[in-house]
Amino acid sequence: MGFEYLTNMPLAKAREDYLNLLKGYGFGPKTELIPVSEACGRVTAHAVYAHICAPHYAASAMDGVAVNAKDTFGATETTPITLNEERYIVLDTGDPIPDGCDAVIMVEDIVKNDDGSITIHAAAAPWQHIRQIGEDVCAGEMILPSHVTVSPSAIGAMIAGGVLEIEVIRKPLVGIIPTGDEIIPPCTDPKPGDILEFNGSIFSAMVRQWGAEARVYPIVPDKFEQIKAMVAKATSECDMVILNAGSSAGREDYSVKVIRQLGEVLYHGIAMKPGKPAILGCQGAKPILGVPGYPVSGIIVIEELLRPLIDHWLKAPAAHRQYAAATLTRPVVSGLKYEEFVRVRMGYVGSKLMASPLSRGSGVVSSFMKADGILEVPQGLEGYEAGAEVNVRLLSSVDKLKNTLVVIGSHDPLLDELGDMLHLENNDLYMSSSHVGSMGGIMAIRRGEAHAAGCHLLDTANGEYNVAFMKKYFPKGGVKLIRCVGRQQGLMVAKGNPLGIEAFADITREGLRYVNRQKGSGTRILTDYLCKREGLDTAAIYGYDREELTHTSVAAQIVSGSADAGMGIYSAAKLYDLDFIPICIEEYDLIIPDHAWDTPQVAQLLKTLKSEEFKEKILALGGYTVDNPGQIIPLD
Amino acid sequence: MGFEYLTNMPLAKAREDYLNLLKGYGFGPKTELIPVSEACGRVTAHAVYAHICAPHYAASAMDGVAVNAKDTFGATETTPITLNEERYIVLDTGDPIPDGCDAVIMVEDIVKNDDGSITIHAAAAPWQHIRQIGEDVCAGEMILPSHVTVSPSAIGAMIAGGVLEIEVIRKPLVGIIPTGDEIIPPCTDPKPGDILEFNGSIFSAMVRQWGAEARVYPIVPDKFEQIKAMVAKATSECDMVILNAGSSAGREDYSVKVIRQLGEVLYHGIAMKPGKPAILGCQGAKPILGVPGYPVSGIIVIEELLRPLIDHWLKAPAAHRQYAAATLTRPVVSGLKYEEFVRVRMGYVGSKLMASPLSRGSGVVSSFMKADGILEVPQGLEGYEAGAEVNVRLLSSVDKLKNTLVVIGSHDPLLDELGDMLHLENNDLYMSSSHVGSMGGIMAIRRGEAHAAGCHLLDTANGEYNVAFMKKYFPKGGVKLIRCVGRQQGLMVAKGNPLGIEAFADITREGLRYVNRQKGSGTRILTDYLCKREGLDTAAIYGYDREELTHTSVAAQIVSGSADAGMGIYSAAKLYDLDFIPICIEEYDLIIPDHAWDTPQVAQLLKTLKSEEFKEKILALGGYTVDNPGQIIPLD
Repeated sequence: MGFEYLTNMPLAKAREDYLNLLKGYGFGPKTELIPVSEACGRVTAHAVYAHICAPHYAASAMDGVAVNAKDTFGATETTPITLNEERYIVLDTGDPIPDGCDAVIMVEDIVKNDDGSITIHAAAAPWQHIRQIGEDVCAGEMILPSHVTVSPSAIGAMIAGGVLEIEVIRKPLVGIIPTGDEIIPPCTDPKPGDILEFNGSIFSAMVRQWGAEARVYPIVPDKFEQIKAMVAKATSECDMVILNAGSSAGREDYSVKVIRQLGEVLYHGIAMKPGKPAILGCQGAKPILGVPGYPVSGIIVIEELLRPLIDHWLKAPAAHRQYAAATLTRPVVSGLKYEEFVRVRMGYVGSKLMASPLSRGSGVVSSFMKADGILEVPQGLEGYEAGAEVNVRLLSSVDKLKNTLVVIGSHDPLLDELGDMLHLENNDLYMSSSHVGSMGGIMAIRRGEAHAAGCHLLDTANGEYNVAFMKKYFPKGGVKLIRCVGRQQGLMVAKGNPLGIEAFADITREGLRYVNRQKGSGTRILTDYLCKREGLDTAAIYGYDREELTHTSVAAQIVSGSADAGMGIYSAAKLYDLDFIPICIEEYDLIIPDHAWDTPQVAQLLKTLKSEEFKEKILALGGYTVDNPGQIIPLD
Repeated sequence: MGFEYLTNMPLAKAREDYLNLLKGYGFGPKTELIPVSEACGRVTAHAVYAHICAPHYAASAMDGVAVNAKDTFGATETTPITLNEERYIVLDTGDPIPDGCDAVIMVEDIVKNDDGSITIHAAAAPWQHIRQIGEDVCAGEMILPSHVTVSPSAIGAMIAGGVLEIEVIRKPLVGIIPTGDEIIPPCTDPKPGDILEFNGSIFSAMVRQWGAEARVYPIVPDKFEQIKAMVAKATSECDMVILNAGSSAGREDYSVKVIRQLGEVLYHGIAMKPGKPAILGCQGAKPILGVPGYPVSGIIVIEELLRPLIDHWLKAPAAHRQYAAATLTRPVVSGLKYEEFVRVRMGYVGSKLMASPLSRGSGVVSSFMKADGILEVPQGLEGYEAGAEVNVRLLSSVDKLKNTLVVIGSHDPLLDELGDMLHLENNDLYMSSSHVGSMGGIMAIRRGEAHAAGCHLLDTANGEYNVAFMKKYFPKGGVKLIRCVGRQQGLMVAKGNPLGIEAFADITREGLRYVNRQKGSGTRILTDYLCKREGLDTAAIYGYDREELTHTSVAAQIVSGSADAGMGIYSAAKLYDLDFIPICIEEYDLIIPDHAWDTPQVAQLLKTLKSEEFKEKILALGGYTVDNPGQIIPLD
């Protein structure tokens, strides 16, 4: 367990120093000659000049006749002029103007006579209805300057100007090397300890989106010489190299030594979080970036430290990052020592853009997938308070955010199905759902952060659900309670019920390992209530403090054998093929604030709730009862 | 010259009817199964569910030791607990939690003893520092809904969830058929009457940008049976077909008959300009779109009528068009009968976004290339007045527009070189230059539409350039006059000077065909002045009313033999290898309004003007003198 000393270099300085070091070694764009017809989206290496004029000949701009304008001078309505067949030539749009002619008269403006002559009632001005040579592009004219992106119409202008090949900036090739004894190629039946190699696929997709090419090398085990050989190979074949994993200070860390032996290391350890153990190295003009193994750390490091190199190579403008002002829904605590990158979910509720921090670990790639933005907390700042106005770098477009139904509250897999149906019904609408439990949902609605909240809160006084909580938390009204579904709650236990659990009270048994839901969730409130009702001592239940955020994650713990029982809904047990001891049926409803009622998102949500397809889908999941979903539940 | 009757169907109705007709025949997305690692940017066909949990085993979240939490209960600073070698297991981040263990203690929190035991000073909570099964993704959980675009991190989440292949919407294949006897493959030495086939390359690039695939078929001559055979072939091979050209009512129009014989024609003739002769046809569920031959008409028709079909197929949100409010610099006159699409150049001068109509023909593809936006003038509207606030569909990004130096005024090829150098020096800056002559430039500056204007106006009273005009048109100041270059003006004549032209007065010669510059241009003012000084009757000069907008287009007319002489600058004559009779040296300067002085664009312009590279480049062009460019010329 030896540690290598890590620096804590401020990110902006590290980025600048890295680019300057590389530029000093000659790092920068290479070019290639390609057919113009394939150049769309590519970046010109030099200014492009027309070789020929377009049109390259004087052409008729109309269907009609070509004449010598002088022959028509004097023609008027009252003094028409007749031209015999030798003095005009019929031609179509695009035809060349014949020698001796210098004007075109439109077909509509001539009268054809039986002897083959034509009569005209107005003089033709020289060069009328003629497309002059070079009207579009003149030979020698600059069609495109250097370092601009080729558009479809620019392709047309270049070909029209006789330019059939152009020199463009070659896409840089980024080599990606996954390392680690525990890393295996993607499969569907990994053994415990195996880690699926998916970083290479993420990083490839990222650099391709930025205009580079990617090549993923085979997984290299944690053997110094093998890693060194692969890095040497990748560096010889590619323009930039990502060496993945092995860059933390753990016991299998060879990255920094490999890069030092092959070239040099500028910095090891950047003041950023996640991503601190990044290594900025190179072999001459070829960057070798050591990237941490956790996917989110890797994504941030590549975005912050590799993308600027790709942008420099491709001469991309720096202005591609889009920011928007948003209101933080929860505080963000950040270390003073690091610049921190916090993933946030975002949504417009009313005209206000909200940003909710996603606070999970750097191993959780799905949290990055769900993020709509990145809050960049500068080094030296301790964070932000809830309600602070912050500037968030957008990952989703403003259009998408404006069309997103924001659901915050109790989790149920049916929300995902609802979101899917909503988007299928209207491609412009999206749903974003966050799982914070029923009470969390009520609080989010009170703070104006959501369009809807899933809620299943038992009033222990009368056994009714939700209504009493509406009255308590929204005493002045302003919300509607919408019937959604009835759900079967019960104990999930391993297949075959090996411990022979029969009733709720069995969770106190010696040796039974319970897994619970988080405080504030409806299921937790139900569980606490059941314990109280049955007189159980929760301190005596092993694992009562072990909290999971969703029904499915509780089920996952049981199926893996790390827990023996947990409360949850039938559909989760069914999904994981677990046994299920029914305890009660609860009402899972949706709270919708009045201010959101008329939004297209909520209108579509209600339409979907009331649809036959929803009913069918929900009943097929199992463990649900459906009675008039979408109906407004009276609160009086 | 027979005409087929064209309808004048309103565009919105035509678009809607077309999609509905096709949907009735089953038009819509087809799907394909692809590896997840290649799915970035593709659209999911169905919701994607995780097959396995990620992590799929309980894993250490830290480097440290795994223990059974119960063994540590009671440990505090004052009552440490020591665990012998059998009661802990050393492990690294990512290692599986061994059987019998349910907590991890960080390496920093343990004391290693000589006998191999460890001492701890705090109890471990069950499941501390353990990544729970399913922390990232739970088996059975929906990872992505239907019809959304796959992001790099979603690829990671899917592979982590054991999803290695997904069904995505297949990219529709668009077949493009160029037709016409006069159409030839791109080359650099076309004969008069030849038209280079570049529409296929433009249309391919467009549909690829929208997510489709393209296949361009060989050029088909104007033979009915050959066109019909090619359309039949393309329709059998592709999902959508573009039949290019032949859709006007000219004499070689077979398109509509071909489509009728193979399938049906919904509408022929749409109330749009350009693009009126478009044909909306199909063979069952396969659209066959007849597209006019002029490139700009074709671009507009494909954007307005094919893109909605591609979007429908790819389930793209409708919200991809970006609009911005802008002020029109010139009136736009539009026909009541059509919805009109007017290309505009745009720029921010101060905080105001300006839109200047580009008023050239639908054959001019370079005008589309130069356009920053499209003003959509609704059917039934006669147009807009200058100064009107209009909503413009953006082709350039707002960021780019904000960073663009807007130059309006007299044309000189050196402006293109300046723009190129400016962008090379700073990738974030661009130059847009419009050629409206020196007086047009002064007016543009007065109206606040430009950052700079090229100007070479002779004060016939004292032979000085520009200064007197500054005083006259900017009596209250507010502008600076910046020295740019001296330019050699003269008569451009054919190589070898076959007419033996010696002096300016020779342009009145019988039989000589003159080509002039537009009124308001500095060169025209100079020419008018020279005529007056030499007592020439301009009515007697053949072609004096034939106006071109640039020096190079004047040169192009002479080199093509359609004119014998025209005034212009030496660099244009040199570019076209023409003979040149020098007449005078004029001062070409730049007018810069004070409000633009501190913008990054103008700062960079001045830096570039003062650079050695600029001097070298300009002298290499020939016909210029350089004396302190970038210097402010005193106006008193």
